[in-house]
Amino acid sequence: MSGHISDAVIRRLPGYYRQLRLLEKEGVERISSQELAQQMNLTASQIRQDINCFGGFGQQGYGYRVQELKEHIGAIMGLDERHRMILIGAGNIGHAVANYPTFQAEGFITVGVFDVRPEAIGRNVAGCVVMGMDGLEEFIRDNDVTLAVLAVPGDAAQAVCDRVTSAGVRGVWNFAPVNLSVPNGVSAVTVHLTDSLQILSYRMKHSEDK
Amino acid sequence: MSGHISDAVIRRLPGYYRQLRLLEKEGVERISSQELAQQMNLTASQIRQDINCFGGFGQQGYGYRVQELKEHIGAIMGLDERHRMILIGAGNIGHAVANYPTFQAEGFITVGVFDVRPEAIGRNVAGCVVMGMDGLEEFIRDNDVTLAVLAVPGDAAQAVCDRVTSAGVRGVWNFAPVNLSVPNGVSAVTVHLTDSLQILSYRMKHSEDK
Repeated sequence: MSGHISDAVIRRLPGYYRQLRLLEKEGVERISSQELAQQMNLTASQIRQDINCFGGFGQQGYGYRVQELKEHIGAIMGLDERHRMILIGAGNIGHAVANYPTFQAEGFITVGVFDVRPEAIGRNVAGCVVMGMDGLEEFIRDNDVTLAVLAVPGDAAQAVCDRVTSAGVRGVWNFAPVNLSVPNGVSAVTVHLTDSLQILSYRMKHSEDK
Repeated sequence: MSGHISDAVIRRLPGYYRQLRLLEKEGVERISSQELAQQMNLTASQIRQDINCFGGFGQQGYGYRVQELKEHIGAIMGLDERHRMILIGAGNIGHAVANYPTFQAEGFITVGVFDVRPEAIGRNVAGCVVMGMDGLEEFIRDNDVTLAVLAVPGDAAQAVCDRVTSAGVRGVWNFAPVNLSVPNGVSAVTVHLTDSLQILSYRMKHSEDK
């Protein structure tokens, strides 16, 4: 079932999860596809199709149970598991990621921070003392690290990626503006900050079209 | 024409732009939809459909002219215009955005940085002296600011958004984890950093399915 979810649906999963969590927080127990559609700026039929994709859940004329659907979507995304995460690069983006409020609560635990710059080593970032890169592989193995955040310059990213993946990391969250090659069985997601700024630029340019 | 581009295609525009810029840099003059599809992990027919959406450009059996298509897509996204941008919130994310290497080169010029915290005011961030919030509206009007980056806590974001939009800002790039309400004619894009981490989590969980 979940093996057949299309990329477009996968990209919408975090939005569903976020909206359902918000509804749960507000004490909403059930929601219809129409209401959810309106809140998320989608169509009700798209919502029904998406939710059918990951196993149904609504009853005709009865709506979805908010908490149940949220937990189901969270489980599909693996948010019911804990990830031991390291951060490589303690610069601006590294600090921003390490201090981002919700990651820890969602099971992404930063267990180590690394940097190549002597002036960064030994500093405290989000409760971790920044380490040099020499012990990287050993640390990954000894601490069951599954996920690495790369906040390093573009020209260093692939080499760092190769090191962490050969030491056993299975997921790379990359903030360097380059596409990474990873071995089979390893997943990588690159955050291109520029993309959303360009989409904003598009919307500003075309806001008069509507 | 460009008024009818679907959201899904709009979201792909920055990826096309990035890939075409890379090809241009590598000296590639023409590319077929098949080659571009392979590089971008899309299908050739999707590429042809997308590019038809914004006005055609290929010739049967001849491929696309890389530079021409890149410039056309850039123009659709408004990247041929300059944006005078302010940053509100000089914390970790604010620093990361202010120092991001490519924004300036793409026409997004940071002209002012603001923060509410006394200890941040007067510091230098990416060549700007951080100002307090008192003169925000006047600065926006006097400096033809069109775009504001919000890197403030979630509970402050809507109030700051209201201030900048009533002073004339037409685009809000929001890093606070809340959805903003904006007046008609104003565009807002929220960067949910968590989304891409959750998508990575999904891919890690399902990498064995394939």
